[in-house]
Order: sequence, then C-alpha cells, then structure tokens
Amino acid sequence: MTIERYETGPRMAQAVAHGDLVFLAGQVAADVVGTGVTAQTQQILEQIDRLLMQAGSDKSRILSTTIYLADIGTFAEMNAAWDAWVDGQNPPARATVEAKLAAPEYRVEVVVTAARGTP
Amino acid sequence: MTIERYETGPRMAQAVAHGDLVFLAGQVAADVVGTGVTAQTQQILEQIDRLLMQAGSDKSRILSTTIYLADIGTFAEMNAAWDAWVDGQNPPARATVEAKLAAPEYRVEVVVTAARGTP
Amino acid sequence: MTIERYETGPRMAQAVAHGDLVFLAGQVAADVVGTGVTAQTQQILEQIDRLLMQAGSDKSRILSTTIYLADIGTFAEMNAAWDAWVDGQNPPARATVEAKLAAPEYRVEVVVTAARGTP
Repeated sequence: MTIERYETGPRMAQAVAHGDLVFLAGQVAADVVGTGVTAQTQQILEQIDRLLMQAGSDKSRILSTTIYLADIGTFAEMNAAWDAWVDGQNPPARATVEAKLAAPEYRVEVVVTAARGTP
Repeated sequence: MTIERYETGPRMAQAVAHGDLVFLAGQVAADVVGTGVTAQTQQILEQIDRLLMQAGSDKSRILSTTIYLADIGTFAEMNAAWDAWVDGQNPPARATVEAKLAAPEYRVEVVVTAARGTP
Repeated sequence: MTIERYETGPRMAQAVAHGDLVFLAGQVAADVVGTGVTAQTQQILEQIDRLLMQAGSDKSRILSTTIYLADIGTFAEMNAAWDAWVDGQNPPARATVEAKLAAPEYRVEVVVTAARGTP
C-alpha cells in the first residue's frame, strides 16, 4: 500500500495519506500578524479543508482531532470558530489542551486524522 | 467504508469508528466535584470501557493512548489507577505529558485509539 | 486481525502493530545524565529506528509524529537532529508543542505512527 504526501518539505509533509487514512501536520495560521484566536482558527480550518481535499477527504470524514491552545482561556473563542465550521452531523472525536506552540505568535494549532475513500 | 459515531453532539463525538479503528474524544471525569487524580482517572477509565464497548472494542485492544495531566507531579497517582485497570497482557503504546486542561477542575484527560473486530 | 506488541511491560508496550499500522509509545532518551536536547533527540530517533524495524517498518514510512519539548526554546536544536535523521524524500506529518514531561531530566519526547507492509 503506497503512501502519498502533500505539500512536502524536507522536514515534514503537511498531509500524509495511507490507505483510507489521512494524517495532517499540526496546522498553524499562515498569517499571524495582528490576528487573534478567532482569525487564526478560521485560517487553520480553511487550511484543513484544502489539505483534506487534496488527499481525497473532507471535514465530514474527520475521525479525530487534537487542538492545542497557547492559552486555554481562549477555549470559548476557538469553539465559536470551530462550531461555525464543523459538520455538526458528522463531528470528530476531539481533545483540546493548552500548550506553548513553536512561535509565540501562534495561538492555536490543530492536528487532524481523517478517512478518505479507499483508493 | 462507513464512519460510525457514538455519543455525538454538534461539536464532537465521544467515539468515532472507521473500519477496524476506534478513536475516542479526550475523556475527562464527568464528576469532578471534590475529586482528585485517582478518582478522576478511575472515572475516565470506566468511561473508556463504556465507549469502547459501544464501538465493538475493549481495553485489551487499545493500540495507543495519550494521557494529559494538569500536574505531572500526579504521575504516580495516575499510574496506580492505570495499573489497576490496564490489561497487563495487552497494554497499549502510551505517552504522558503535562498540559493545562479545558477547565481547572480537570486533573486528567485521556485520549485512546483502539482496534475493533472488522465489521 | 491480530495485534502485535513489542517491548511490552505491565503498563505499556513500546510499540503496538495492528494490520498495516504501527503505534509507538512516547519515546524519551534512555540515557539522560548530562545530556541536552541534541543528544536526547538523537537517542530517541535511534530508539524509533529500532522499534520500527522490530514491527516491520522504517523511518521512510512514518505517517505522523508528535514532538513534545520541555522547553519550546529548544525547537531549533531539536530540528537540527531531526533534519539530519528524517528521510527528506518521505517525511511525515508533524506537530511540535511544549509540554512538561514525566521527569525533569527529559527534554524531548516523540510519538510516532507508521505504516508497515501488510502482514
């Protein structure tokens, strides 16, 4: 069974698909200048849409997600952006914890595992 | 291949099964009033038993788990509850780290990926 | 479908394989006396090589990894060891966050999910 990689650099790939599973790299917002949790979460969720589409999946087929917040006090703010985006009929398993991220500008990071149609 | 969800709300599902894999949402104790790490861990492990059973799995088929502790100083206390529960003949891969959780009352959160009989 | 476990103790296994997936326990450096992030990361990556080999996989087939750093300020130092090791043609999806680890001597912990040849 082959492994397909998407948006691949020398250090990591943004998405890796194997069989009917897709694993995304931790997504942080591409544009963080002057943005808060709401805007960063919205950007990240759009990035997830794009990566899942490339790999033959979509948000209705997310199986599991881990959300890291630089400040757990922004939980409600992240959730508002999440709730506006998630497929409420097909939501994933989810865990949210606080963790300092790779750069202080990053307020949110989201990791996703999804299913795709078997190739 | 279909995706089955269990204990589903509009934001997340407590368990999502796809093929022979089951992904649980991060489990925190349902009853946290006046409870410490031991009681919370015991509650969480019971919740995991219940969710895995619903999805056609059980603790002997857990593949991987991530345990978040609000205070890593409670590692030994969590381990005592874990050791009393885990199937010692069939233990999962495990990682334990400290992270602040969604509410300050939560002292432990556990994420599980398990196998189930192929449907 | 059977589950195979490697380097199994009563609490956890260092690797668990199911079908064509391999899940590793969080790897911390075996020898931490007087070591920093570089040496610990190198040790961990060797441990990952050994565990993946046992389970019929290798670093070119890592699908996803989570890296926990006790101090996110060591991100560049960890990355230097990572970049020297990773298969740059076949890199995994990756997320890196800060988290306090099970013992203060541990500066890095790495969790890996990989594919293996279907048995």
